[in-house]
Order: sequence, then structure tokens, then C-alpha cells
Amino acid sequence: MIIPVILSGGSGTRLWPLSRRATPKQFRSLVGTQTMIQDTAARLATLGEVGEPLVVCGARHASKVQKQLAAIGVSPTILIEPSAKNTAPAVAAACLAALDRDPESVVVVLPSDHVIEDVDEFARMVDLAVATARDGYLTTFGIVPTFPATGYGYIRPGDSVGDAASAIAAFVEKPDEKTAIDYVASGYLWNAGIFVFRAADFLDELRTHAPDMHASVVTAYQSAPDEGDTVHLAESGWNTIDPLSIDYAVMEPTKRGAVLPLACGWSDVGSWATLYDLGTKDALGNVIQGNVFLSGTENTYVRSDSKPVVVVGVKDLIVVEMDDVVLVMHRRAAEDVKAITEQLPDELT
Amino acid sequence: MIIPVILSGGSGTRLWPLSRRATPKQFRSLVGTQTMIQDTAARLATLGEVGEPLVVCGARHASKVQKQLAAIGVSPTILIEPSAKNTAPAVAAACLAALDRDPESVVVVLPSDHVIEDVDEFARMVDLAVATARDGYLTTFGIVPTFPATGYGYIRPGDSVGDAASAIAAFVEKPDEKTAIDYVASGYLWNAGIFVFRAADFLDELRTHAPDMHASVVTAYQSAPDEGDTVHLAESGWNTIDPLSIDYAVMEPTKRGAVLPLACGWSDVGSWATLYDLGTKDALGNVIQGNVFLSGTENTYVRSDSKPVVVVGVKDLIVVEMDDVVLVMHRRAAEDVKAITEQLPDELT
Repeated sequence: MIIPVILSGGSGTRLWPLSRRATPKQFRSLVGTQTMIQDTAARLATLGEVGEPLVVCGARHASKVQKQLAAIGVSPTILIEPSAKNTAPAVAAACLAALDRDPESVVVVLPSDHVIEDVDEFARMVDLAVATARDGYLTTFGIVPTFPATGYGYIRPGDSVGDAASAIAAFVEKPDEKTAIDYVASGYLWNAGIFVFRAADFLDELRTHAPDMHASVVTAYQSAPDEGDTVHLAESGWNTIDPLSIDYAVMEPTKRGAVLPLACGWSDVGSWATLYDLGTKDALGNVIQGNVFLSGTENTYVRSDSKPVVVVGVKDLIVVEMDDVVLVMHRRAAEDVKAITEQLPDELT
Repeated sequence: MIIPVILSGGSGTRLWPLSRRATPKQFRSLVGTQTMIQDTAARLATLGEVGEPLVVCGARHASKVQKQLAAIGVSPTILIEPSAKNTAPAVAAACLAALDRDPESVVVVLPSDHVIEDVDEFARMVDLAVATARDGYLTTFGIVPTFPATGYGYIRPGDSVGDAASAIAAFVEKPDEKTAIDYVASGYLWNAGIFVFRAADFLDELRTHAPDMHASVVTAYQSAPDEGDTVHLAESGWNTIDPLSIDYAVMEPTKRGAVLPLACGWSDVGSWATLYDLGTKDALGNVIQGNVFLSGTENTYVRSDSKPVVVVGVKDLIVVEMDDVVLVMHRRAAEDVKAITEQLPDELT
């Protein structure tokens, strides 16, 4: 059985004010009509032998997950993290739940807040990745770069393994721009945090490379009361875990890693500048949503949620109007949103 | 008796969205706490022998005038124009009402939507202007320019008349920038639309230079039903009037004109750019009002009326948030607001 594991622990602060602590961006509709977590769950529906997803999230978001997925006919099992511990423990807990369903289960680990434009190509590549995983590889998708991004880590592919995959020669950190250009020219791929492996294989590797974490997650999972579709991971084991990403805990140390190149219109929609890039532009390069009036304005993103927004004579701005706040920002300042939210009153963040 | 005549027929469209058809800028607080028409009425309170003001406005604004002036203890007589006919007929009607109070009355004609920072200096100059008016001159204040403005008409002073005034050598139209520099260097003054004269003298000159208008205004005034503090000028006479400014109808043709230089921190607050200029600036040149958070922002005006506004990484913007609309505009585009309001739905203008 193939089991989607949807990670919904992210906070998406760079998309404030659309993304809030109470309602991070995965619960919003950024592109199209469904929310991002709905898109994520729907994306795998075309594959065969796919079970209901496992979703890992914090307690404050569990009811949103349940409600939004129910709205598209999906009945997830929700694993609730008592506290945020980065991705490795979350994936480990999901793998334990997957094993309970099927000892041979292959999990497809998906962040809940990414956009994929070409769903058919994605599905085709997931099929390949599942085959690679069934050969015993811990497989990650490496996004084929479309520009020399400095905001992502990269994966250097090594020798071929199987039909389509390569060994992982190295994970490398976010580069400066010059290095990024070199990486793209050398065939490096973006590390997008999408993984496919047998649940049992991941847990084996975690036990080898991070035995304390493995033990703590097992404790937290096994001590969770049986509540049907919701698993409250137990604080006893969970709270002793040192937060660590799946990359650091398993994917870098493992000798069983593989990478598959993926070119499917992927974006993590990491900032308002990215959302502008993804949008449909008018003749002057503007992207608008809602009740917006423009005059003499170029290369600007304007979103109106609750009342009309009139923009005159500007270039390269992001304007976001919501029912309780307005953000006006230069497109080049899009990465600075997180910093200013730290200065705002709690009720706005 | 000195009688203030407050002209409240302006629409202030360049200050949209603060200024609306239903509530033009004179009924708003732009600088300080009182509304502009309240400031205008209060400005003359320090003078001696000043009667209650006459206010000329359209029917839709009469109750606002009454209410706002009552709030500061002023009981105006309101002359309601059946239609807008520019300033000459409005002033003529007010002069007829002033004559009914006192045949020797001197009127001080004031637009309702100007800012004057140095009220003491203004009062001192009004005293001088009243003396000049009592010598038989139709006196206008010429604002001493503080920069080579291209947005105002200018007055060229001629020979001295009386103690402080000059004859009016010429009224000249709004200049281009080069011409404006010449004008300022040559001692020209801004034409601000503030006048002081005996009501009888103005009506005499109007009868001489615009006899049809004079006759129509007399008809409209004399046919108005007696309603105490409100005079509904009669459509019968009024609607036959060709609109004309006081400058064209009387001040240019008269041989009895005089100009007094006035340096009192005057502004017509004609646009958002002017409101920025008038504001108190922080160390980065920003002017803010209301619940505003700035980061990396310079030389920007932000006004929040109903919800927080966050501005990040921009320069030279005007941001105005009101309960039903948001305006984001480059400071250099401030003169373009009027044009865009013509494209907006009626309920927003």
C-alpha cells in the first residue's frame, strides 16, 4: 500500500498576513480554489493502491485538517505533535502508523504547502519513486532548477541506481548567487522535502543513525491513547526529542539514498514574491485578486480580501488587504515580512 | 461689523478617499483635531466685532455645516446654492445677506478647506485688510511663496496703496516651473482666494462688471423663503447664472483691487503630497497617523483609519486606509487621484 504522509507543521510566516499562527498558509487558497493541503491530498488521488493519508500537525490545527480534507472526501489519520520537533520525528511517527496498516507500506512524504502545476507528471514520477523505494532506496525528489535560486538547499546526484534514479552524492546548503549558478550548470537539483520510501526502511535507518530519536518516537507513538482517526503522540517520549530535519537525521548519513529529478512546476510559495511569480499577469505585469483598481501601476501584486484597493502610479509592490490588517511592501522586501511580524501585536500574527 | 463668509462648495477630489462627494475634505480633520471648516470658523474668533459667519454650500452639506459649527459654539447662517456656480455668485449672495445685517459690513471671504498655521499672524493681517477694505479697496491676500509652485495662480503686486497694501497689477495663470521661479524671484504672490471688502463695494463692482450675474443673484436671494438661519437661494434666479470665479467676475476687472502679502503657514492641502509635506516626520521622513507599523520605509505617508497598516521596504508612497477602501499611491502620482476616482463605482467616490 502507498500511504501519503502530509506534513502540516509549517507556519509559513513569510506569507503573513495571509498565513497566521492560527491558520498557516497550507489552510489557505493561494493559487486556484482549493486550499494547499486540499491540493496536496488531491494530488495523489490519481495513483493506484493509495491509502488514506497520514497527516502530522500541531494540536491547534488538527480540526482544520480534518474539516478541510473531509470537504474533498478524504478521511485522514491525524498524528498530533505535542510540540514542534522538525521533520525527522514527524516522519518517523507517520512511518510507525503506516507499518500498523501494512508492514510493506511505502510512504510518500509531502509538505502540505507546496504548489505543483503538472499533477500528471508528478503522479508519473511518484510511480517511479515507489518502484525505486521498493528496491530498498530512501528516495527523494530533486526539483530540476528553473533559475539559480539562493533560497533552497541543493542535491548533487551521483551514480545511476535503477532505471531513473541516482545515488545522492551530497546535500549542500543554500548557496550564494554565484555558487547557485554553478550548481544549476552542474546539474544539481533543489531539495524540496518530498520523499518516498518503505516505512520500515526509514525506521531502520533512523534506528541506525539517530537511535535516541527512534526510541523516543516509538515511546511517544506506543503511549498514545487509541482514539481512532486521531493519534495524540505522548508527551512522555516526544518532549525529550532534539528537533532535527529528515535530511540531517537520515537522508545525509544513509547509504541507501536515491534522488529522482522532478520537473512539474513545483513551488514552495515561500514568499509573496513567489506568489507574484506564480500569478497570471496583465499587460503591465500586475497580478490582482479581488476588488482591485489599478492606474499607472506595473509589476505589482494586489490582493483584496475585504474591501476595494486602489493602486496608483507604483511599481514592484506587494499589497495585501485582509479583514483585520493591510500589508504594503516592496517586492524586494518580501523576505523581510517574518522580521516585522515579530514586532506586531500577537493578535495580528 | 466684520462678517466671515465661508465658502464650502469645494469637493476636494484630489484628497480622495478621505474627501468624498458626501463628505468633502472641509468636513474632515486633516491636520490637528478639528475639521477644516471648524478651524476656518475658529480662526476669526480672536478678532473684535466679528459676527456669526455666513456659510455658502450645497444642499447635501448643509446639515454637516450646521452640526460641525454648532459643536464649536458657532451659529452660522447657511446659504444653500441650488447648483454649483463657482465663487462669484456665492460671494455675491453672501454679501447680500451681510448687507441685511449691516450696510457697512466688511466681509472676510474664506475657503473652508485651507490650513493656516500661524493664526495670530493671520488675525493681524485681517485687521490690516479690514482697514484697507474700509478705505474702499477690494482686498485680496497674496500668499508669500515658499517654493516655486506650479499649482497656483499668482498675483503681481503694483504700486503701494495705504499702509501695507499694493494695487493689483495683474492676476496670472498657473505657470510652468521655470516661469514660477521667475515669479517668485520677482515678488509675485500666490492667489489663495481669501478676500476682504465691504459687502456694498463688492456688489457695486459686480453690478458694474457682471450685471447679469448681479441681477440673477439678487433675484435668487430675494426670492428665497425666510427660514431663519438657512437661506435656500431660489432656483429661479440662480439656475440662469453662468458659473464664474470671483477673480474673473470682479477682482481682475475692478480698478479698486488691492493685495496684502500674507506669510502665515498657509496651505490649501490640495493633495496627499501636500498633506505629507505638512505632517510631522520621523527620522526617516515618514508621516504616520493611526495604527501603523513601518520597517525599512522612507518619506512615506501612511494613514490608518480602521485597521492596522504594515509598510515594509518602500519609499515615497501615500497609503490611506479607510473603512471602505484602501489607496496606495506614489507621492509623485498624487495629482492623478482625481482621474482614477472617475473610474470607480459611485459608492466609493
